[in-house]
Amino acid sequence: MIVFMVENLKAWEFHKKLHGKLSVQSKISLKTKKRLSLAYTPGVAQAVEAIANDPKQVYTLTIKHNSVAVVTDGSAVLGLGNVGAEAALPVMEGKCIIFKEFAGIDAFPICIKSQNSDDIVSIIKNIAPAFGGINIEDISAPRCFEIEERLQNLGIPVMHDDQHATAIVVLAALYNATKAVNKKIQTCKIVVVGSGAAGTAVIKLLAYLGLKNILAVDSKGIISIKRTALNPSKKELIKITNPEGINDDLKVAAKGADVLIGVSAKGIFTKEIIQSMNSHPIIFAMANPNPEVLPTDAKKWGVAIIGTGRSDYPNQINNALVFPGFFKGLLKYRITKMDSDMKVKAANALANLIPSPTENNFIPSILDKRVVPAIAESLKQFSQ
Amino acid sequence: MIVFMVENLKAWEFHKKLHGKLSVQSKISLKTKKRLSLAYTPGVAQAVEAIANDPKQVYTLTIKHNSVAVVTDGSAVLGLGNVGAEAALPVMEGKCIIFKEFAGIDAFPICIKSQNSDDIVSIIKNIAPAFGGINIEDISAPRCFEIEERLQNLGIPVMHDDQHATAIVVLAALYNATKAVNKKIQTCKIVVVGSGAAGTAVIKLLAYLGLKNILAVDSKGIISIKRTALNPSKKELIKITNPEGINDDLKVAAKGADVLIGVSAKGIFTKEIIQSMNSHPIIFAMANPNPEVLPTDAKKWGVAIIGTGRSDYPNQINNALVFPGFFKGLLKYRITKMDSDMKVKAANALANLIPSPTENNFIPSILDKRVVPAIAESLKQFSQ
Repeated sequence: MIVFMVENLKAWEFHKKLHGKLSVQSKISLKTKKRLSLAYTPGVAQAVEAIANDPKQVYTLTIKHNSVAVVTDGSAVLGLGNVGAEAALPVMEGKCIIFKEFAGIDAFPICIKSQNSDDIVSIIKNIAPAFGGINIEDISAPRCFEIEERLQNLGIPVMHDDQHATAIVVLAALYNATKAVNKKIQTCKIVVVGSGAAGTAVIKLLAYLGLKNILAVDSKGIISIKRTALNPSKKELIKITNPEGINDDLKVAAKGADVLIGVSAKGIFTKEIIQSMNSHPIIFAMANPNPEVLPTDAKKWGVAIIGTGRSDYPNQINNALVFPGFFKGLLKYRITKMDSDMKVKAANALANLIPSPTENNFIPSILDKRVVPAIAESLKQFSQ
Repeated sequence: MIVFMVENLKAWEFHKKLHGKLSVQSKISLKTKKRLSLAYTPGVAQAVEAIANDPKQVYTLTIKHNSVAVVTDGSAVLGLGNVGAEAALPVMEGKCIIFKEFAGIDAFPICIKSQNSDDIVSIIKNIAPAFGGINIEDISAPRCFEIEERLQNLGIPVMHDDQHATAIVVLAALYNATKAVNKKIQTCKIVVVGSGAAGTAVIKLLAYLGLKNILAVDSKGIISIKRTALNPSKKELIKITNPEGINDDLKVAAKGADVLIGVSAKGIFTKEIIQSMNSHPIIFAMANPNPEVLPTDAKKWGVAIIGTGRSDYPNQINNALVFPGFFKGLLKYRITKMDSDMKVKAANALANLIPSPTENNFIPSILDKRVVPAIAESLKQFSQ
């Protein structure tokens, strides 16, 4: 552990000083030849033969029981877009250290040069032997849907965390935010702005719970039956949102809405849009690094509840609240595929950590030590 | 660091108790939201943008300057053969912890399911962004030659350590062993038994130094112009070994030899073979985990100098003496391709750590703290 004052550094200085945020360590010192001969040749041959004779032993004799590959192609990094595999590495390292610090999981970044879906699927299949799980990260929509889908029979859990961890944390926040302002989630008008990976997964999970009054909005307006040139994943959203077939823009969508969920772009939730919402408006402004509206502005304009994706504002609604515990549960209970029931259970477990939510306290802190075990244990019933 | 008594454990019990030999750690504790916002969102965006704008910054802001992928397909693991990617994992983990403990390098295992050379080349190219070097490991000959060759322009060093680190350690041992028995390396008759990856690389490095009196032996006998059905890499050995074109077996090859180098199979250096050698015979019996002859037998049968690949016998001639320091030098001096000059320099640096070698002390211990810096610094002149 490197010890120095970081709080006064700029983020790039911090990265330069650390010179890489993660390190690989040996669990045991190799200070004697005896130890070397246990960990390496000749002793290691016993572990090799044990696995060759009984493949399940890879979970008892190696890191596989606790290792996760954080895989990206750098095509949709934060809100910065297609920066490529090298430039994505600081984010993947950040993900890996969060995995370790919060859930004790050994995660390592795999930054893939190719942005071709077939290549990415093939590479993930091929590197799977050393990993107990695959966290797909910052791969652009709609390719991320197809890639994840094609890997569901790999034998280890493959989860695109931008989709599912985001959907889980949004659902948890929504449970508690509606409770705090005394609204029923079933009767809320919910507008999801941004229909990439995160927005699509949020909408699908809300629809799985039976919610109907949802509008999906992308950069061209409300997604509706009248829109032409929609990609297949957006076409699917037509079936589960916008039952009245409204074909208009964000301004029209937001009118009378109870909840605005932004996974889109900086600053697009204007004063006008916010003030057209229903009473006690709830806003999750999760664009990263710059939210759709700043919390101070939102409050000034009459918003009841505001959360963002950032660590430096209160009420952080970030998938980092979910993925460490969710993967911990997947690994611990040797679950090979996640499903919507697991996501709902995890969202409930997270929400229930705040039994009496208020406008200013509706989502647990990422530093709350109860978060990871609560989410991990919510998966116990799915043990395989 | 896990602390428990390991010295009394069997090797598989040791592996079971550790439950994986390596772990990933964060270099900095994420105990405050401020730190999270530096290491992850929003601060991490500054590091991403810095690399997107200037790709070289990946070496200053991420783990790339110090990370090595240990890549295998599990096709030639120790002396155990084609055990597959999962069963190879304990060896790769062992390699990774040696990298860390001895050279401070952050290495991570990549165990590839496919054993197709095109797949392996493509996967390594694609995962290169997060790594500063690639250590190809336990891939069977002759595929390992082709795979390494095809990756030499990747922009980061790609080294098949079973070939080159073995060649370097053998050359260092040979320098000192011949010195100890007062023979000249140039006039020695050297028989290399085993012509897979390691044997081929040893022979090529000896030939690069101008040695002529070399015989290569494989399971079918001496490699000669008269042998049919040789693969391309064995055909190349014809050009640099066996100038008299002898077509016979190991027994004939060993007669009058000064040096027997075994990278082959358990127990094949019999009493008869050893006793047919020249006076003051030198034997490197490096088959793993079981050497071609046990040191106690060799000494009984009149061998002057015996080394094996094992940690639990004296005089360990194992590539583990070389690869940590060699990769440390490659990384430190940002060398993108290794060549034979570098190998010779490294072998000299290693040998020179014992200025007055004797029959029982001709190769430094793997635990000798001078080994890694000596080898790493021998590459300084090749700085790029």
